[in-house]
Amino acid sequence: MAIASQKIFLAGFMGTGKSEVGRHLAQLLKWPFVDLDQKITQQTGKSISAIFARHGEAAFRKLERQTLSTLLQGGQAVVALGGGAVCSQSQLQRLKKAGTLILLQASPETLQRRLRSDRSRPLLQKPDPLSEIVTLLKKRAPYYDAIHWRVSTEGRTPKQVAQQIAKFYPIEQQALKVSLGDRSYPIYFQQDVIKSLNGLLRNKFTGERLFLLTNSVVDRLYGKQWLRELKREFKVEKLAIPDGERHKNLNTMAKIYRAMTQAQVDRTTPLLALGGGVIGDMGGYAAATFLRGIPYIQVPTTLLAQVDSSIGGKTGVDLPEGKNLVGAFYQPSMVLVDTRLLQTLSPRQMRCGMAEVIKYGAIFDSKLTGLLEKQMKDFLKNPGSTMEGVIRTCCEWKAWVVKLDERETRGIRAKLNFGHSLGHAIETLTDYRRYTHGEAIAMGMSFAARASMAKQGLAQQAVARLEALLKAAGLPQKWPNFSPARYGKVLLQDKKRVSGSIKFVYLNKIGDSVVLPTPIKEIQSWL
Amino acid sequence: MAIASQKIFLAGFMGTGKSEVGRHLAQLLKWPFVDLDQKITQQTGKSISAIFARHGEAAFRKLERQTLSTLLQGGQAVVALGGGAVCSQSQLQRLKKAGTLILLQASPETLQRRLRSDRSRPLLQKPDPLSEIVTLLKKRAPYYDAIHWRVSTEGRTPKQVAQQIAKFYPIEQQALKVSLGDRSYPIYFQQDVIKSLNGLLRNKFTGERLFLLTNSVVDRLYGKQWLRELKREFKVEKLAIPDGERHKNLNTMAKIYRAMTQAQVDRTTPLLALGGGVIGDMGGYAAATFLRGIPYIQVPTTLLAQVDSSIGGKTGVDLPEGKNLVGAFYQPSMVLVDTRLLQTLSPRQMRCGMAEVIKYGAIFDSKLTGLLEKQMKDFLKNPGSTMEGVIRTCCEWKAWVVKLDERETRGIRAKLNFGHSLGHAIETLTDYRRYTHGEAIAMGMSFAARASMAKQGLAQQAVARLEALLKAAGLPQKWPNFSPARYGKVLLQDKKRVSGSIKFVYLNKIGDSVVLPTPIKEIQSWL
Repeated sequence: MAIASQKIFLAGFMGTGKSEVGRHLAQLLKWPFVDLDQKITQQTGKSISAIFARHGEAAFRKLERQTLSTLLQGGQAVVALGGGAVCSQSQLQRLKKAGTLILLQASPETLQRRLRSDRSRPLLQKPDPLSEIVTLLKKRAPYYDAIHWRVSTEGRTPKQVAQQIAKFYPIEQQALKVSLGDRSYPIYFQQDVIKSLNGLLRNKFTGERLFLLTNSVVDRLYGKQWLRELKREFKVEKLAIPDGERHKNLNTMAKIYRAMTQAQVDRTTPLLALGGGVIGDMGGYAAATFLRGIPYIQVPTTLLAQVDSSIGGKTGVDLPEGKNLVGAFYQPSMVLVDTRLLQTLSPRQMRCGMAEVIKYGAIFDSKLTGLLEKQMKDFLKNPGSTMEGVIRTCCEWKAWVVKLDERETRGIRAKLNFGHSLGHAIETLTDYRRYTHGEAIAMGMSFAARASMAKQGLAQQAVARLEALLKAAGLPQKWPNFSPARYGKVLLQDKKRVSGSIKFVYLNKIGDSVVLPTPIKEIQSWL
Repeated sequence: MAIASQKIFLAGFMGTGKSEVGRHLAQLLKWPFVDLDQKITQQTGKSISAIFARHGEAAFRKLERQTLSTLLQGGQAVVALGGGAVCSQSQLQRLKKAGTLILLQASPETLQRRLRSDRSRPLLQKPDPLSEIVTLLKKRAPYYDAIHWRVSTEGRTPKQVAQQIAKFYPIEQQALKVSLGDRSYPIYFQQDVIKSLNGLLRNKFTGERLFLLTNSVVDRLYGKQWLRELKREFKVEKLAIPDGERHKNLNTMAKIYRAMTQAQVDRTTPLLALGGGVIGDMGGYAAATFLRGIPYIQVPTTLLAQVDSSIGGKTGVDLPEGKNLVGAFYQPSMVLVDTRLLQTLSPRQMRCGMAEVIKYGAIFDSKLTGLLEKQMKDFLKNPGSTMEGVIRTCCEWKAWVVKLDERETRGIRAKLNFGHSLGHAIETLTDYRRYTHGEAIAMGMSFAARASMAKQGLAQQAVARLEALLKAAGLPQKWPNFSPARYGKVLLQDKKRVSGSIKFVYLNKIGDSVVLPTPIKEIQSWL
C-alpha cells in the first residue's frame, strides 16, 4: 500500500484537462509533475503527431511504454498520461500496481465544446465531431471502465478538480472497491460519517438536488441532523416511509415515485437510502427504475445491512405471493459504512446481523471465526468502536462473491445461502413473526452444520464451535419442531429448485464450504 | 458472406462437448472436421499438457495460432477450438472474419458434473472445483461474451446440439446482431414466423414454461393461433391486457406480476411480448423486474414497434405525472420481425410507423430516403411482401446507435429524437388525443427541417423533399397553431433540458444530422 501510493496517474479523454489538473495536483501534494506526452516529445525531439504520422501508432505506444518504465522506477510523482496510454490490459495492470490510477471525465458534449477551438486535434476537423468522440469513447470503454476512481471535471476548473483529488486521496486509498467494470463502486468506512458526508457526495455528484429516503424510526433518530447537513450542499427532499418489511411493496413504491416526481428528481439526482435492509432494497429499486435509472447511495444503519444487503445490488419489493419477487440487480454509486450508527440498534437487531457475520466466518474465513470467538461480547456491547474491522472483512468477502457472480447466474453466490434454506422455511412456517431473519438463519446454520457432518464428514468439534458461537451471540440453534413433511413442502417452493432438489450449502470445515444439489428427501432425513 | 460461411468454429469451456458436437456437425453438413488440439498433438508429437508443462502457455498459444493459420487457408470445415483459443481480441477478430463462431454453453454446476470423472483435468483435482470453474469462466467472460451465437448444451446430447446448429445455421447467418457484449441478441426477419417459432425459441430456451403477454386487439387477431402453436413445445400461460397507452401503468404491471406468479414463472421462463409498443414496453419491464430479471422475446406487431421500440431495451410504464417515468434498460433475448403481421394494421397505424422510417432516412441514410420516395405507395399498401428490406435497414441503424449508446448517456442516441422535441410538445398540448405519435413527429420533423435551414443552412430543396415524402405517406406537416409561449413552456419540461436549453436535432443534409444544445428562445423564434 505504501509503495502503491507513491504515484498518481491521471488518465482520461483529450479535453478532460489531465495536464492542467496534474500540474495543480503536484503543487498541492508537493510532488514532481510529469506530462508523459511532453516527456516523449523532449526525449525524441519530435511532436506526438509527427511520431504518429511518420512511425505509426504501434511505434508511439512502444515509446510510451519505455518512457513509462523509467518513470515507474522513480519516486513520488503525479503523471498525466496520454488519452490512449491505458488502452491495453497489460499497461492498465502495470499502472494499477505502480500507483493510484484516476480517470478524469466529462460528457461528450462538454468535450466537444472544450476541444472546438483546438485546431491541433485532427479528430475534430471531421464533420460530426460528437459522433467521433462517442465512437472513440466506446472503443476505450473497456479500459476506462476498469479505472475505479473517477472524477467529473464537469463545471469545475482544473484547480478545483486537483483540490478535490488531493482531499480525497487518503480516503480513496482506504476505500474497499467492488469491482464490476463500469458498475464498480467504493465502500467508504467512516466513523461519524455525517462529518465528511457532503465532501464524499460532492466528490461524485455535481448536481443541485438530492432525494433522501428513510423510514420513520431512523428518521426520528437521525432525520433532522442528516437533513440539516445535506441541505448545506443540496436541495433536498426527504421521504420517510413506515418502518417494517410489510411496507416493502408496490404501493409504497408508488408513493416513492410520486415523491420523486414532486421533488423534480432528474437523471443526475442521487437517491440516498438511509436505513436498514428494507430501505436499501426499496431505495435501490426506486433508483433502478425511476427514469430508467438514477444514481443511489447506500447508508446502511443496521449490522445486517452493513455486512450484507447494502452490497451486491439486489434491490426490490415483495408481492402478496412472496418475498422479493419484483426487483432488479442495480449497483449503488457508493456505500457509506458508519459503525457509530449501530449504537442505536436494539440488542435483538444486533444479534440478527451477527448471524450473518458468523456465516461469513463459517463459509469463508476461519480467522474471522476465531476473532468472533474471542471478542463476541465486545462486539455486541460496543459495536461502534470495535466492529469496523470485522464489518470490513465481511464486506470484502461479499464484494469478492459479487464480483465473481453479480447476477447470481454462476452458482458461487449461492454459498451466501448457508443456513438460509432451512432459515427461509422456518420464516415461512412461522409467518415471519416469531423469529427475526438472523434468528431463523442461526437455526438454519446449526441444521446445515449437522447436515454437513452427515454428508461431508464435517468434524463434530466444528459443529460444536459454530453452535457455541451462535449461543454467545444470543442466537437460537435448535430449529422448531415442524414435521419433515411440512418443512419439505416449503423447501420445494425454493426459487432455484430443480425437480425435487435444491442447492444446499455444506461446510467441509470452518471456513470452507461447498454447494451441492440435494434431494429434498435427503434433507428431510436429517430433520 | 459466402466466404465467411465456409467454416464453423466451436468455442466453449472444457466439458461443453466441442469435439463431439463438432464431429456430429461435420457429418450432418458433410464438411471435414478438425479438432485443433488434436491437430497440434499430431503435428508436434506431444500432448497438450506436455506442451503446457514444458514450454508454457505462451508457447502453446503461438503453436495454436500457427496451426489455425494454415487451417484458415483451407476450404469448408468444422473446427473444434481449445477452451482458451478465443481468449485474445486479435484471435477473436480473426476467427469472426474467417467464419461463424459458435459458443457452446453449460452452467458451472453441469460442467463440474461432466468433468468430475475426468482425471486428466488438473483444474478439477482442486478442493473446490466449482469455484475454480466460476473463476476461470469469469476471466474468459470478455471473450466468450463477444460470441453472439450461443448454444446451450444443457440436457442435450452432443448429437442433438449438432442437429440444432445445422438447422439454424442459415437462419443465424442472416440474423441481424445487436452487439452489446453479454447482452447481445439477434433480430430474426421471418415471414410467417409462426411456422419457425418453436424452433427459434428452442434454439435458445430449454425450460418447459413460457409466458405470453399480448393485448386484447392482437389477441383477437392472433392469440388462438399463437397459443396453439406455442403449446406444442411449452407449458404456456397467456395474459391479454386491454389495448392502449392509458393502460401502460403500475396497476396493469401489478396484474402482470400476479399472472406471472400464478403461472409459476421462474428465472428460466421466457416472456414473449406479442404486440405493439405498449406491449413491448410493459412486457420488457415485467421481464426486467420479475425475480430481478427473466429472459424476454419481442414480437412487434406494428411498424412503429418493428423499426423502433422493439430494439434498444427501453422498457417501462407511465406515471400519472408523465410518460415513461418508471422503467429499465433491459435487452431482449431475441426479436422476431414478421412483416406479414403488418397486413392487419390500420392505415393510420401504418402511417404512424412510416414517420419513424422516414426519420431514419432523414438523419442517417439518403439512399433509404430515395427508396421511400420511389416506393411509398407499395410499402403502405402491401407492407407484408415489400417492406422487409426497409425495416431491416431501419433496424440496422437503430442497432448501430444502441451499440454506441446503450443507456442514452453518450448523446449519440439523441439523434433518434429528430422531430421529437416539437412532436412531444404537440402530443402534450393536445393531450395525446388528436394525433398519433407518428403524426406528431411528422409535424415535428417538418419543423426541425425548417429550423435546420435557419441554423445549419439545410437546402430548401431538402426540406421540400422531406415534406413531399411525409405527404406521400399521408402524414401532416404543418404543426398546430399554439403560441410560441405555450410551446416554450412544454419544451422546458424536456427530461434532458439544461438551464433553458434542450438538445435539438438538425439536418445538415438528407442523411446527415447533428445534435446541438439550443436555447428554447431560439426554437420559439422559428415557430
